[in-house]
Amino acid sequence: MREKIFRDPVHDFITVRDPLLVRLVDTPEFQRLRRIRQLGTASGTYHGAEHSRFGHCLGAMHVMGKVLARLRQWDAGVVDERLERLACAAALLHDIGHGPFSHGLERVITPSRGHEHWTRAILSGPSQVHEVLESYERGLSGAVQQVLTGELPERQRWLHHLVAGQLDVDRMDYLLRDALYTGAVYGRFDLERLINTLMLVDGRVVFSYKGIPTAEEYVLARHYMYWQVYFHKTTRAQELLLQAVWRRARELCAAGALGSGLEVPPSLEPFLRDGDGTLEAYLAIDDHDVLYAFKRWQRAGDAVLADLAARFLHRRLPKPLFRQPRPAIPDEWVTVARQVCSRRGWNPDYYCLLDRTSDIAYDYYTEGVAAVTQPPMLAVDEFGELKELSKVSEVIRALATRPRSGANLYVPEDCRSEILQRVRDGG
Amino acid sequence: MREKIFRDPVHDFITVRDPLLVRLVDTPEFQRLRRIRQLGTASGTYHGAEHSRFGHCLGAMHVMGKVLARLRQWDAGVVDERLERLACAAALLHDIGHGPFSHGLERVITPSRGHEHWTRAILSGPSQVHEVLESYERGLSGAVQQVLTGELPERQRWLHHLVAGQLDVDRMDYLLRDALYTGAVYGRFDLERLINTLMLVDGRVVFSYKGIPTAEEYVLARHYMYWQVYFHKTTRAQELLLQAVWRRARELCAAGALGSGLEVPPSLEPFLRDGDGTLEAYLAIDDHDVLYAFKRWQRAGDAVLADLAARFLHRRLPKPLFRQPRPAIPDEWVTVARQVCSRRGWNPDYYCLLDRTSDIAYDYYTEGVAAVTQPPMLAVDEFGELKELSKVSEVIRALATRPRSGANLYVPEDCRSEILQRVRDGG
Amino acid sequence: MREKIFRDPVHDFITVRDPLLVRLVDTPEFQRLRRIRQLGTASGTYHGAEHSRFGHCLGAMHVMGKVLARLRQWDAGVVDERLERLACAAALLHDIGHGPFSHGLERVITPSRGHEHWTRAILSGPSQVHEVLESYERGLSGAVQQVLTGELPERQRWLHHLVAGQLDVDRMDYLLRDALYTGAVYGRFDLERLINTLMLVDGRVVFSYKGIPTAEEYVLARHYMYWQVYFHKTTRAQELLLQAVWRRARELCAAGALGSGLEVPPSLEPFLRDGDGTLEAYLAIDDHDVLYAFKRWQRAGDAVLADLAARFLHRRLPKPLFRQPRPAIPDEWVTVARQVCSRRGWNPDYYCLLDRTSDIAYDYYTEGVAAVTQPPMLAVDEFGELKELSKVSEVIRALATRPRSGANLYVPEDCRSEILQRVRDGG
Amino acid sequence: MREKIFRDPVHDFITVRDPLLVRLVDTPEFQRLRRIRQLGTASGTYHGAEHSRFGHCLGAMHVMGKVLARLRQWDAGVVDERLERLACAAALLHDIGHGPFSHGLERVITPSRGHEHWTRAILSGPSQVHEVLESYERGLSGAVQQVLTGELPERQRWLHHLVAGQLDVDRMDYLLRDALYTGAVYGRFDLERLINTLMLVDGRVVFSYKGIPTAEEYVLARHYMYWQVYFHKTTRAQELLLQAVWRRARELCAAGALGSGLEVPPSLEPFLRDGDGTLEAYLAIDDHDVLYAFKRWQRAGDAVLADLAARFLHRRLPKPLFRQPRPAIPDEWVTVARQVCSRRGWNPDYYCLLDRTSDIAYDYYTEGVAAVTQPPMLAVDEFGELKELSKVSEVIRALATRPRSGANLYVPEDCRSEILQRVRDGG
Repeated sequence: MREKIFRDPVHDFITVRDPLLVRLVDTPEFQRLRRIRQLGTASGTYHGAEHSRFGHCLGAMHVMGKVLARLRQWDAGVVDERLERLACAAALLHDIGHGPFSHGLERVITPSRGHEHWTRAILSGPSQVHEVLESYERGLSGAVQQVLTGELPERQRWLHHLVAGQLDVDRMDYLLRDALYTGAVYGRFDLERLINTLMLVDGRVVFSYKGIPTAEEYVLARHYMYWQVYFHKTTRAQELLLQAVWRRARELCAAGALGSGLEVPPSLEPFLRDGDGTLEAYLAIDDHDVLYAFKRWQRAGDAVLADLAARFLHRRLPKPLFRQPRPAIPDEWVTVARQVCSRRGWNPDYYCLLDRTSDIAYDYYTEGVAAVTQPPMLAVDEFGELKELSKVSEVIRALATRPRSGANLYVPEDCRSEILQRVRDGG
Repeated sequence: MREKIFRDPVHDFITVRDPLLVRLVDTPEFQRLRRIRQLGTASGTYHGAEHSRFGHCLGAMHVMGKVLARLRQWDAGVVDERLERLACAAALLHDIGHGPFSHGLERVITPSRGHEHWTRAILSGPSQVHEVLESYERGLSGAVQQVLTGELPERQRWLHHLVAGQLDVDRMDYLLRDALYTGAVYGRFDLERLINTLMLVDGRVVFSYKGIPTAEEYVLARHYMYWQVYFHKTTRAQELLLQAVWRRARELCAAGALGSGLEVPPSLEPFLRDGDGTLEAYLAIDDHDVLYAFKRWQRAGDAVLADLAARFLHRRLPKPLFRQPRPAIPDEWVTVARQVCSRRGWNPDYYCLLDRTSDIAYDYYTEGVAAVTQPPMLAVDEFGELKELSKVSEVIRALATRPRSGANLYVPEDCRSEILQRVRDGG
Repeated sequence: MREKIFRDPVHDFITVRDPLLVRLVDTPEFQRLRRIRQLGTASGTYHGAEHSRFGHCLGAMHVMGKVLARLRQWDAGVVDERLERLACAAALLHDIGHGPFSHGLERVITPSRGHEHWTRAILSGPSQVHEVLESYERGLSGAVQQVLTGELPERQRWLHHLVAGQLDVDRMDYLLRDALYTGAVYGRFDLERLINTLMLVDGRVVFSYKGIPTAEEYVLARHYMYWQVYFHKTTRAQELLLQAVWRRARELCAAGALGSGLEVPPSLEPFLRDGDGTLEAYLAIDDHDVLYAFKRWQRAGDAVLADLAARFLHRRLPKPLFRQPRPAIPDEWVTVARQVCSRRGWNPDYYCLLDRTSDIAYDYYTEGVAAVTQPPMLAVDEFGELKELSKVSEVIRALATRPRSGANLYVPEDCRSEILQRVRDGG
Repeated sequence: MREKIFRDPVHDFITVRDPLLVRLVDTPEFQRLRRIRQLGTASGTYHGAEHSRFGHCLGAMHVMGKVLARLRQWDAGVVDERLERLACAAALLHDIGHGPFSHGLERVITPSRGHEHWTRAILSGPSQVHEVLESYERGLSGAVQQVLTGELPERQRWLHHLVAGQLDVDRMDYLLRDALYTGAVYGRFDLERLINTLMLVDGRVVFSYKGIPTAEEYVLARHYMYWQVYFHKTTRAQELLLQAVWRRARELCAAGALGSGLEVPPSLEPFLRDGDGTLEAYLAIDDHDVLYAFKRWQRAGDAVLADLAARFLHRRLPKPLFRQPRPAIPDEWVTVARQVCSRRGWNPDYYCLLDRTSDIAYDYYTEGVAAVTQPPMLAVDEFGELKELSKVSEVIRALATRPRSGANLYVPEDCRSEILQRVRDGG
């Protein structure tokens, strides 16, 4: 048996024994995740967070193995070897479709397709991932796809929720991993304890009453990570700037700059020209192509592009208008801000940037209504009855019922006070 | 006061209060360190170790601040504000000259110049680092340079040893940092305790007898990190391959491929053509240029270059001939190995790679002879007498007196057993 | 300077430099705290929690030193050396009056006096603590006393709140300490961060907005420790049994057993006879006297006392009637339970034990009304405005507004189901 | 199944599933370990180390379970359920015979019998431990005894070495536990890793080559704990004083004080009178009896006893003559010291105390000669060959070959300088 052992800063050792999983890790598509940062632009704010998707995907697979081992210990019959392989492959590949800067450019490079599209495409092939799965067992790539999308018979749907739910191996890994790398203590929770309270009841993965404090910790961890790390205003500023650079380059290409004047790395051409590309083209790009391009564009003939790229690389970021995000930014305020920017010589399309976290928002905990994709977290009491978490935890109830959204405007530093003044004066 | 606070996974919070230091961090030359990995190719082996030089340099400065605070607490007169600023600037900038892949390509991209050359060049300018230093205080860039090189009056030489000695802030930070990111427990030691035993006696930074166990821990940490992490055979294999790709590209350029056929990122041109470049050219390149080039070269017309680049990116690495490094590899063995490679169709210049760790070796502890650059670690006993560490610690004596070198040969997997057989049969 | 260094499992090193504090630690009254367990009977449930009050008191003083250093860093003028000495002495001595089993026997051994009485008595003397304080500076013992009781001028009242408030060094130490020793992760919070956000505004110690998440962590830590550790049903059972043994012994003494038949350690005589004693007598007793007596009483002529003592020592504990505490236990239920116990041969006065946590309840967080003794926790926003914590934290609001009390009945195992049945049947 | 879960500060959760083990934990003999401190007098030096033998014994059993699980994973056939139960029972009970203050009074209370005698006696009965074992399976108490003494067939002898060898569950637990409670970082090593490298080869528990660094850590941990904690000079002073108090009390009893004048707790009578006692008498005493007696003896008519007891309780300890232990203390020096003490009015039998750590020394690592009781630690290389640890580790070799003993004299503070002077002057 050729097992592979990875030393991991979060889980210590990750041992991969199943030969299928070893071969999946070795595919170029999976190795490519080493070149895609997990948190996009967040390393600008938290310099420690330079980690790639590679470790997270290994970690999610590892956590899946632990969860299944726990369920098997709880009831030996619930997980057989085939199911374990399928679930671990799904956990390993759940983010395989991510592209440059992960969520940071996801809907910008290929506006009509998110990373889930590319995951599906990689599974369907042509790709080495597809080949490895199908050569192992015919139809396996489709089965993995079903686990990821949830198109499963009712009694197996819990498998899907373990890779894409409120209590899934994705979150369990990324909270701990991002907390470690950022240095934020907030994301920590007791993974061993959480897992050791899990059970499979009525076809759902639930936790026992004893696990409520740990489940609270887990949801709080998410809450804090969102507001302290993922939505940190400096990270948001850098992400908006990243997108602005790309948008400007696309604009120029649309106006005919491709091939005449603007230096464009060949790998990026289709995406800048068409906002789309073939699977092969998509698999060829990663953070390095984008950063290489940005570095070149500092010397671009177009002054806006050159300035934006330099600002991005040297971290001269736009400033948030408000210290705390607001529930919403009225259209009039945007108009005012754009006017001020324009008058001071900043093209508002690239320098006056509206951010709505509700656009990207992800509830750290919701009492799920749309039960298929995001079923609620359930605790089972001493009599076997299932209770939704926010019903038995006042802490969670406090978090679950408040709307979560926030908006802000990011503008050049020299415009900020004037805009603020005019907004306060009512326009 | 515009203080800057960095959240750091190793030191928790790094607070920069001195306005000079804040401005140094903001220079493009320093921000560029974000794009240069601390451990070159080691992240191929330890996937967590994807961190850049940026965090390490901040960390070294932070540790310097702590060491000086301790010395000041021990004797209020030894460190004034100016000295502190100078020492912290030197710690912050000690690695500013590093280039793509740090040590991994250091003597390959510009064979005649190491990173110390480039550090000196950046300090001398033209550069923003130079400007920031000189505009703060005339002559300051030279003073920083002197701390880094040790050209200091005898009574200040301890400052130099704190940035480049056996007990320096460089090692104190990188051991802890690399240990955290790799997940290796070996690099850990108790930084607080180590620092709290330091004193300045006879113009040298020494530690008290109480600190001996912690000093042992620190030297052992280094010992383990070298053999378990830095010299790990997979890391060595990937670094040798990295250099082979570059050497092949240079060879092709020397043979006229530049401008005809071989796609070469413009930023890399001078280095591939001349093995050298201007400071401006050097500052323009980082890991991204190299990796972007490698990705393009997978499709190069030259089959050797294309194959080597693909092997590097997809981690199909050469294999070590011996499981444990040997004291030396006789020339006959190298000849045999090259013959076997050649016969099987592998160009031995790129596929039969000799590794001598003594080339890169760095004693994790030496009882220093060349006292100026690497003075010994000294403990001060109850009567104020100084004792060299290996004299008072049997554990350190055991490590200090054994020669430390190792050699190995890395070859294509399909050649390994034949070479091994012939070497064992005596040729 | 004769500094004293204590290695502490919670704070690593506790260094005592002030000669007054060193001498206070060396008094017999303070050394006596080594023989009084911090958590009374909780070590029966959490076997790791065998720690004494000694370490906690050192720890509280250490945390006080850190808080004052932070305030001084924030504004150099707020804390002078004399104030620091006074505050640290108060923190060191805040629990000096605790007796055997701390809260577990506090109002049982001397029903009319709590530990605050004895603290006051020790400060007033005759005692070595009193002598050390007065010989250092006349009137100092009274000043310490004022810090502990809060009889201070308005502008110094924050000192009192730092030893006895919702955000005090007592809680900061005991949460971390008890969490470490019990092995409960719940009590942990980030002490360094919490302290580093403190400021003195309008004569109150408040924390900055940045500190809100850490303050939440701190209040949650307290919440979890109360419900998971301090009010754990097994701990409650053992404490009720402890008190029952003592009550029985007193009863027998009242009935004339003292000096005839019942073996009573001489040190305990006044307390068993009179429910009170002189300061000298009080200082002579600790956990050892009580446990030694219990061990002897296993062989007492009185069968109830012998049985209770043996049950206590070998941990055959009464059982809680309800798995979860109830808001209240109606008198009829108590009557029923006592009847069942009696009929089965158990003297209900000692075997049917009513527990009301509201009796001992301590709000882990209250939006303070009685502002003098328990002022609210306040956060200061960017404009210097003070906001009460529950106003700016939905998590805290959730905890603060719910009533917190619970009651249960503890009975012999063989009575439990019958009582439960009859209670459910309505009597 | 009635499993019992203990929350442990070292191992987090200790789950006891085997009903035999649950019942053993519940015996009065095992519960009694709660009243015997693990480290005797060390809590005087390290105030955190107030933990009892109870937790250590649970921990040793827990580690045994983990080691056996690892061996079973490595080779499913090596450990069956019966063997596991036997091994875990032996680990749980390995220290059941310890008495008051563990090693501190072991050969003082009953000079002719060590704790191993009492362990054997408890296993042989009459005791509840004996009954529980025999009622579970006839002959089981003898089988446990054999595991503890090593009277086993060759092929099972590894079981014995796991409870009493250089690589045993006793050390694995106490190093981690004592390190945690003292706050000393030195005792830490990576338990999970150490266990995960174990194998059973040729009837011995050995570790793989990969485990060498962890095994080094483990031996170094022991080395540091011995010299920094167990042999700490303040701990030694307090232990010598403890023994002096007892010796004086015995002397007085021998001279007829029992029953006339000296207050002696009845439980201690046989030991003070005869230096021995029945098993029942032995099981009745613990730390509390001794400390209760010491507290009473502060008021004893005999001035020496009263003074010694008060010194012990208030920690006015004798002072070491030398800062560092010496290889040996010549008889002449002892004579000089006794003379000085006598002249200054101190009875040298109780105030001039000779300490030889070689008396209590325990090699933290020996290349075993007396192979049966202390076989060497063995590493197995890639070819299955066994190598003794000091042969493959220079660090261990350094520790293993140096003689380890030390002697010191402890005297009243007012005699120290005169004795030192005269000893230096050659008498």
